[in-house]
Amino acid sequence: MKPNLLLTNDDGIGAPGLYALFCELRKIANITIVAPVAEQSAVGHAITMSDPLRVRNYDRDGLFYGYAVKGTPADCVKIAYWAILDQKPEILVSGINLGGNAGINTIYSGTVSAATEGAILSIPSFAISLDTFENPDFEYAAKFAKKLVFLMLRNGLPQGVCLNVNVPACHESEIKGVCITRQGLSVFQEHFDQRIDPHGRIYYWLTGQKVDIEKDVHVDEGAVLANMVSITPIHYDLTQHDFIDTLRKWNFKA
Amino acid sequence: MKPNLLLTNDDGIGAPGLYALFCELRKIANITIVAPVAEQSAVGHAITMSDPLRVRNYDRDGLFYGYAVKGTPADCVKIAYWAILDQKPEILVSGINLGGNAGINTIYSGTVSAATEGAILSIPSFAISLDTFENPDFEYAAKFAKKLVFLMLRNGLPQGVCLNVNVPACHESEIKGVCITRQGLSVFQEHFDQRIDPHGRIYYWLTGQKVDIEKDVHVDEGAVLANMVSITPIHYDLTQHDFIDTLRKWNFKA
Repeated sequence: MKPNLLLTNDDGIGAPGLYALFCELRKIANITIVAPVAEQSAVGHAITMSDPLRVRNYDRDGLFYGYAVKGTPADCVKIAYWAILDQKPEILVSGINLGGNAGINTIYSGTVSAATEGAILSIPSFAISLDTFENPDFEYAAKFAKKLVFLMLRNGLPQGVCLNVNVPACHESEIKGVCITRQGLSVFQEHFDQRIDPHGRIYYWLTGQKVDIEKDVHVDEGAVLANMVSITPIHYDLTQHDFIDTLRKWNFKA
Repeated sequence: MKPNLLLTNDDGIGAPGLYALFCELRKIANITIVAPVAEQSAVGHAITMSDPLRVRNYDRDGLFYGYAVKGTPADCVKIAYWAILDQKPEILVSGINLGGNAGINTIYSGTVSAATEGAILSIPSFAISLDTFENPDFEYAAKFAKKLVFLMLRNGLPQGVCLNVNVPACHESEIKGVCITRQGLSVFQEHFDQRIDPHGRIYYWLTGQKVDIEKDVHVDEGAVLANMVSITPIHYDLTQHDFIDTLRKWNFKA
């Protein structure tokens, strides 16, 4: 019997990365698609609390159909789990994102937050991103997702853990393998480009580039730079456990 | 010389919790306020990439003034650091949030994400939240924030770490002390309330309640339940380091 998979993304239900993922995974699984109506990049782990959520049916071609949610990727996972699906899916896959979600970008990523939401709901989940914004070819990433679905069905994941996968944009023949990595911690040198609108008012655009990217292949960004698929296991316990003892020594009574 | 503090929040620049924080901290510091124009609760670590940011001056009473940003808490910290402030602030304080940000709520919290963004920018930062939505009295929480500013100036924080503070809503005389905690991991039993709008269309409201809240005072939620101020050190390295070795044994070559 085919496993039941839930697919989502943050680029929107019409995005080609989600379609490529669907085309490959439907060969091995029953698919339900619940994805944002519109692009939701850099929404982090936002959820919609102050507004009602709208869901409409989406049908691309009679084959690719699902639910388009006017909300964030985390909203999509929540509403799929609590209101749309009859049973818990075996696996949740979020992607394929247009653009990498490695290093510090992980925390801003709607794609990753959907997988994290899956982990919160005890669904084995992974996010998958293709490290390019130009001329994306999702074929290899989609095949890799299929392989990872099999591996996750076989091996499972610990409670509270999901996987963040980044695929280099090179040709399949140039992929150097898979590396299990940690999240890179290099930060952005950012800049706010100040402009004047036609009405004479100032506005700003955020731009930036990463500095000091770690080249180590055991770091997500380093692995992708070396043409390796990086897989980082991630969690949602933000506690810095090893600082607790130090903090207990601060004098709060003073 | 007074230290320079940056204040932000996710309830919006007009929120009473931010004003209470300002009134207390201005006694000991030079304050710059850069906060969202409007409420931004549950935005997680969202940043504004696809739209330009607008910033306008805000002046409440000639004393409380600052910059109102049409964006998220993380946007506020970024634009304060990169475009508004002349020098890096000694401390960033985000809050005082109306409602607790403990346990799983930590990952959805715009208040916390502002402190995390501070940590990314190497600014010693903390988020502070008052655990009530009704009849909030921010006075004790504001005084506690002042104490914590002194302690952080004295002790510093490791790179990449910030503090998430939750204050019980009881009277100051009932506060049982301070507990250094870890993030609680109890999840929500959620429900989407399905309704019909006046035009006959379905919409959903997310509701939910936490189940199995950990009562241990070494867990953020448990400490607050016991009328203690909880302080959880948090990070933005989402890597589940102790699962890396296991994941390396998966057979990706098959």
